[in-house]
Amino acid sequence: MSDSITISVDAMGGDNGPKIVVEGAALALIERPNAKYIFHGREDELKPLLAQHEKLQAVSEIRHCDNVISMDDKPSQALRKGRGDSSMWNALQSVKDGEAQAAISGGNTGALMAMATFCLRPMDGISRPALAALWPTLRSESVVLDVGATVGADEEQLIDFSILGAAMARALFDVDLPTIGLLNVGVEEVKGLEAVKDASKQLHAHSGQGFKYHGFVEGDDLGKGTVDVVVTEGFTGNIALKTAEGTARQVATYLRTALSQSWLSKLGALLAMGAMRTLRSKMDPRTANGAVFLGVNGIVIKSHGGTDEIGFKSALGLTYEMAHNQLINKISEGLREYAAHDEANKDKNNNEVGSA
Amino acid sequence: MSDSITISVDAMGGDNGPKIVVEGAALALIERPNAKYIFHGREDELKPLLAQHEKLQAVSEIRHCDNVISMDDKPSQALRKGRGDSSMWNALQSVKDGEAQAAISGGNTGALMAMATFCLRPMDGISRPALAALWPTLRSESVVLDVGATVGADEEQLIDFSILGAAMARALFDVDLPTIGLLNVGVEEVKGLEAVKDASKQLHAHSGQGFKYHGFVEGDDLGKGTVDVVVTEGFTGNIALKTAEGTARQVATYLRTALSQSWLSKLGALLAMGAMRTLRSKMDPRTANGAVFLGVNGIVIKSHGGTDEIGFKSALGLTYEMAHNQLINKISEGLREYAAHDEANKDKNNNEVGSA
Repeated sequence: MSDSITISVDAMGGDNGPKIVVEGAALALIERPNAKYIFHGREDELKPLLAQHEKLQAVSEIRHCDNVISMDDKPSQALRKGRGDSSMWNALQSVKDGEAQAAISGGNTGALMAMATFCLRPMDGISRPALAALWPTLRSESVVLDVGATVGADEEQLIDFSILGAAMARALFDVDLPTIGLLNVGVEEVKGLEAVKDASKQLHAHSGQGFKYHGFVEGDDLGKGTVDVVVTEGFTGNIALKTAEGTARQVATYLRTALSQSWLSKLGALLAMGAMRTLRSKMDPRTANGAVFLGVNGIVIKSHGGTDEIGFKSALGLTYEMAHNQLINKISEGLREYAAHDEANKDKNNNEVGSA
Repeated sequence: MSDSITISVDAMGGDNGPKIVVEGAALALIERPNAKYIFHGREDELKPLLAQHEKLQAVSEIRHCDNVISMDDKPSQALRKGRGDSSMWNALQSVKDGEAQAAISGGNTGALMAMATFCLRPMDGISRPALAALWPTLRSESVVLDVGATVGADEEQLIDFSILGAAMARALFDVDLPTIGLLNVGVEEVKGLEAVKDASKQLHAHSGQGFKYHGFVEGDDLGKGTVDVVVTEGFTGNIALKTAEGTARQVATYLRTALSQSWLSKLGALLAMGAMRTLRSKMDPRTANGAVFLGVNGIVIKSHGGTDEIGFKSALGLTYEMAHNQLINKISEGLREYAAHDEANKDKNNNEVGSA
């Protein structure tokens, strides 16, 4: 099958061990039967788990590896300890070697980003990779980046993030020119940081080359889904993401408490059970599990470390889509389209100089 | 009555004009009958509004002023246009002159901050004022600052924010040593910005002097209410605040849509009406209306420009409490306590030098 996608899995990453990884893969296979898997990790643990899922076992391969990066290793420690041979590194190496179209790990974020950068190398033309999240919105979903790869970003890095985010949006959503917004405080041109203002000017000038630039957006535009891609540096992006998760949990707690306050409200909740179930699935953080590490030569997905098999299944779905829709090609296209504008300007300037 | 508090009101600030200001004050007076008001603004508009509220009229004074700062004046324009005579400036001047214990405006935030800094001057020992919000949490409420006074903050400014926030928490909550957390990405010491890391060391060293330092907190700690005071610079703080507001609205929309999906869920919602009302009041952004501009020589409250009379009443309640609980004295105490530690260290060092 030319359509089959092979996913390389760090089976040992995450707080909940290989069990949820294998069970998540079994569930994911039901939705996307074209997938194949390479599981990197301890064979004695993985073999009996896979044996419980016949169909999955048939499309899977185990690559034994004893060395596991722990959740609290610092990135530099992880590199020293796991470079060249660890379940995380080997998962990435399979992508580098062309055996797999994408890698996924629920392991420690800092370690995964360091290893992915080291193993797969940044793409030509990208000065800094970024971690992108899928943000559920009232309209549908948006891509938000950087949500925590690096603290701070200059003008050029914000533009890289825009090109990367637009490519991811093109790979996921049915849209040719994704809209891009730069996260800022207030929509007036006067406010905000220099890097954000300068990037805004550049994006205005390049609007139409692979994306449509909307302008500045504010924190409350995230939930509204005002744009397809929200761009910001990693500190603010990470805090916005966790603030939104925390607020959603807070409101859910208010709702639960309110509904259990009297027998009448309990009865009401019972009758509205279908509605409550819809709400719960809308707000289930597991459905939005999986962040994409953009800007290296290969597809790398970070699953939440604390997730269960349902969450891991969602992250595998995202992994599959990124590979199936050729994320890396879309990024290359985006980089070319963005550069084309500068080339055209350069030619124009040269001609003008020539004719002067 | 020694207990009476006079509040100076920019009656022309906000999107909805003086009507909601006067009606909000009438409502606030029911809850806090000790208040008196000075309304700054156009007498021909204010007089008939006040005439409708006999009790309020009896404790109020109108100070006529024609000049009104508009919602889209830039801070510099506002200063040029309104310095010395505008409803906003005059509201602040009443505090400076000692006629009122606090000022409130629903006008343009940038203009109010510029004017407050210019008219009331920053407090001795404070390098930068900040805008503090009251954040509803699962525990109760927290003080979060800076939510948008200035973009960026160095180590010293973050420490100023901590002292200011702790004083506000002491004035509002029944707590001697408010807990302080610094907003960061990840709780490990290794991550984050230099300014945040350096401020963290200083706060550790001064823990016990007017506050208890908790350490780093993340975005999801805001809604949990992990600490009494969350400190961050204005860019991140503003985006976190608006992201939380947006997420709360998003979840409310999901809930409304889900509950109207069938007649059964509609019936359920009807039976659970009491619970829904509790939830709505918990999530009503109007109850948390009012941000405090901390660090100038006087109490200045910013009400949301788009709020109604209920929201303005809440902001007036906050204004009253800040004055009643002597916010400015509490800040001075906080500054002294923080400095005492340094003095003690200096003395100790001097003595050591002396005895050497």
